[in-house]
Amino acid sequence: MSELIGACVFAQSGGPTAVINASAYGVITAALAATEITHVYGAANGIAGLLKGKLYDLGQEDAQELEYLLNTPSSELGSCRYKMKSHVEDETDYITILELFKRLNVRYFFYNGGNDSMDTCDKVSRYFEQVGYECRVMGIPKTIDNDLCGTDHSPGFGSAAKYIATSIAEICKDTHVYDAGTVTVVEMMGRHAGWLAGSSALASFSCASPDLIYLPEVTFDMQEFIEDVTEVYNRKKKCLIAVSEGISYADGSFVSEATVSATDGFGHVQLGGLAVTLAGIIHQRTGAKVRGIELSLLQRCGAHLASQTDIDEARRAGSFAVEQAVAGVSGKMVAFKCKRDGGYECELILQPLSVCANNEQKVPREWINERGNYITDEFVDYVLPLIQGENTRATVNGLPRFAQLKKVPVL
Amino acid sequence: MSELIGACVFAQSGGPTAVINASAYGVITAALAATEITHVYGAANGIAGLLKGKLYDLGQEDAQELEYLLNTPSSELGSCRYKMKSHVEDETDYITILELFKRLNVRYFFYNGGNDSMDTCDKVSRYFEQVGYECRVMGIPKTIDNDLCGTDHSPGFGSAAKYIATSIAEICKDTHVYDAGTVTVVEMMGRHAGWLAGSSALASFSCASPDLIYLPEVTFDMQEFIEDVTEVYNRKKKCLIAVSEGISYADGSFVSEATVSATDGFGHVQLGGLAVTLAGIIHQRTGAKVRGIELSLLQRCGAHLASQTDIDEARRAGSFAVEQAVAGVSGKMVAFKCKRDGGYECELILQPLSVCANNEQKVPREWINERGNYITDEFVDYVLPLIQGENTRATVNGLPRFAQLKKVPVL
Repeated sequence: MSELIGACVFAQSGGPTAVINASAYGVITAALAATEITHVYGAANGIAGLLKGKLYDLGQEDAQELEYLLNTPSSELGSCRYKMKSHVEDETDYITILELFKRLNVRYFFYNGGNDSMDTCDKVSRYFEQVGYECRVMGIPKTIDNDLCGTDHSPGFGSAAKYIATSIAEICKDTHVYDAGTVTVVEMMGRHAGWLAGSSALASFSCASPDLIYLPEVTFDMQEFIEDVTEVYNRKKKCLIAVSEGISYADGSFVSEATVSATDGFGHVQLGGLAVTLAGIIHQRTGAKVRGIELSLLQRCGAHLASQTDIDEARRAGSFAVEQAVAGVSGKMVAFKCKRDGGYECELILQPLSVCANNEQKVPREWINERGNYITDEFVDYVLPLIQGENTRATVNGLPRFAQLKKVPVL
Repeated sequence: MSELIGACVFAQSGGPTAVINASAYGVITAALAATEITHVYGAANGIAGLLKGKLYDLGQEDAQELEYLLNTPSSELGSCRYKMKSHVEDETDYITILELFKRLNVRYFFYNGGNDSMDTCDKVSRYFEQVGYECRVMGIPKTIDNDLCGTDHSPGFGSAAKYIATSIAEICKDTHVYDAGTVTVVEMMGRHAGWLAGSSALASFSCASPDLIYLPEVTFDMQEFIEDVTEVYNRKKKCLIAVSEGISYADGSFVSEATVSATDGFGHVQLGGLAVTLAGIIHQRTGAKVRGIELSLLQRCGAHLASQTDIDEARRAGSFAVEQAVAGVSGKMVAFKCKRDGGYECELILQPLSVCANNEQKVPREWINERGNYITDEFVDYVLPLIQGENTRATVNGLPRFAQLKKVPVL
C-alpha cells in the first residue's frame, strides 16, 4: 500500500459516553505521532461542524490537557445527530466535505459514533472512492447502548454498566433500611436493546440484584408485570425492578409513551417517565410505598465511575484506527473480538462499515429467562469483564479535573 | 465522675447517608476497646427494634467486616421513623426500654440520627434521670440535609454535596454536547433547607455551576422563575437549573405538590416530580428542549463517591461519643466546631441534646443572592472543605465491597 501523506480530521457523533474522549485521546495521540499525518484537526459537533468548516487544530493542545481527556465524559469536540442523505439523492454535503478536504489536504478521516455514524462513514468513504479522492475513512465504535453489530461490545457500554450496577447496589442498600415494604422501579436507557437494564443484575456481586428486569427484547405485558411484582412484594415486602426505557407492548407502542388504559386508573399520558408511571400503577394495585428512579443522563456521563477496562479499550480503538489507516486500511470500523474462557482477552479487529451501519445488536432471547423478567448467567458472564478496573482519575478541589482544550480554530 | 460498667446499645435512625456506617464503625470499635463497656449491642431498625428487643451482639463481628462499614452506605443495622411521645403522655415505650436495659445491664446508649432522633435521645435521657436509672445517653449527628442545629455541619452532608457537585459537573458536560438549545432542571433533596441544592454551585471548580439555583429558604415565584430561565436561555441557548424538592409558594404549599394553575397549562397534579414539572412548564413557555432529572436516592447512598473528610469526621463523631460517655458525659450530642480561615480544622464539641432536637438550621438568607436564584461565595467557602478527599474503598468484581455483618441476635 502506498504511503499517503496529509492531514487528518477526527469527529465525534451521536450520544456521548463516559469514555468517548478516551477514544479521542487514542486518535489524537496516535495521529500526532504518525509521520504520515501532517495536521490533526478536530471537527466541532461531528459532521455538522465539518459541513460548516468548523475545525480545531489539535496539534496546538497541551499534552497534559489531552491526557485529561481519558477521564472527561461527553464528546469534548461536540456532537450532532445529523443524518446525511445518499449522494445519489443529494450530493451537496459530499461536495462540501470534498472541497474542504482538498483545500486542507485531508487524507484521513476518523469518525467516532454509533450505528448512524457508521452509516455516514460508509457513505463518505464510498463517495471518495467513486470520485477518486484518496482519503482513508475509519469508523470507531461508541455507544452506551451496546447495540452496534460486528463487535463483541462497544466502548462506553462497560462504564455505563458499571455505573448502573454500582448505583443499583447502593439503591438496594438504601431500600432495605426501613422495615416497611417498598417497591422501587429504576429506569435505564436503551430504546431497542436491553444491555443496560440487564447490567443491573451485576449488582448481585456487591449487594443484591434487582428482583425483576424488563428488556425491550421481550414484549411487555402489564398484567404479567403486575403479577410478577405483587408476587415478589408479598413474599419479601421489598421489590426492586429494573426497566429499559424502550419496553413496548405487543402493538409496538412504547410503554413510556402509551396512555395507560383507564382500567389501570390513569386516563392521561404520564409525563414523569416510565419508572414513575410503573411505580404509580404498582402503588394503586398493591398499596405499597413506591418510588420511581430514572438514571437519566447520569448513566452515560458518570466518568468518575468509568471502568478502566472500558477506558483502555476505548483508547486502543482510537489509536488502532489511526495505525491501520496509516498502514493503508480504509472503509472499516474498529471492532472487538473477545474471549472470556480462561481469562478475558480483547483483540482489535476490522469490520466493513456496512456491517455495522444501521443494524442493531440486541440481547439474544436465550440470554433472557422464559418469563421475560430476568437475564441469564450467560448475560452476566458477558458483561462482568467489561466493568473491571477502577480508574485513577485526577481531581481538583475534590471534584473531577476535566480536560480544558484550547480549541484553536483552523480557518 | 464514677466509673460506670455495663453494656452499650447503639442504634441508627432517620434517613440513611453515605457515611452513617462510618459513625457506626467509630462507635463500635471505641466501645469494643473500652474496658468499661462489657457488651456492644446494636438495635435493629433504631428505636423501633429496641422496643421489640431486637438486638445484635456486635462483639461477634469480624474486625475486617466492621472496617468495610466505612464505605457501606445506608444504615447497616436498619432505621426507623418512629416518633416517641413524651413519657408524661405515654410511658409505655420508656418502660419497655428501661426493662430491657436493666435486664441486659445497659449503661450506655448511643443514638445516631437527625433532629427527631435527637429529640428521642433527649426524652430517653431525661426519663432515665427522672427514674434514677444510671445510663449515659449520647446523640451522634447525621443528615444529608445538614439542617441540624448546634453543629457547624453534620456527617453525611459533605458526601451528598460531593455527589451532587460531581454529578452536576458531569451533567454540565453532557448538556453541552449538542449545538441545540436545552434547559435541564435537576432536583435535589431538602424539604426545608437548601444546603444540597446550593452545593451544586461547587461544580464550578470542575466544569461550570448551574445557571440558577432555587432553595426552600426563599419563597418561590413561578413568574420570576420563568423570567430568569428565559433570560439565561435566550442569552446562552443552554440553561442548567438546580432546585430543592422543598421550594414552596408564598402560601406555604410545596411547588412539587401544588396543582399548577391552568394559566400554566397544567390542569392536574403532576406525578413526575418537581424537576419534570418545572421542565414541562419551561418547555411550554420557551419551546426549548427540556429535561428533568431527580437525583433521588442516589445522592444519599452514593458511597462510592463519599468525601474522605466526611468519612473521617463521621467516624470520629462516633468514637468521640463513646469516649465522652465513658468519661462521664451524658445527655449531649456530638457536634463540630470548625474554622476555615488559614486552613480547615474541625474540632469535636458537645451540645445539649435539647439544642439540637426539633430545630432546623437553614441556609442564612445572606448566603443567597437578592433575587433568590443563586448562592453567594460564603456558601461555597463553607461547603468546599467538606467535600475534600477521595475515599479508597474496597471493590470486588469491579463493584463496591460492602460490609457483611453476621448480626448475631442477642436474645
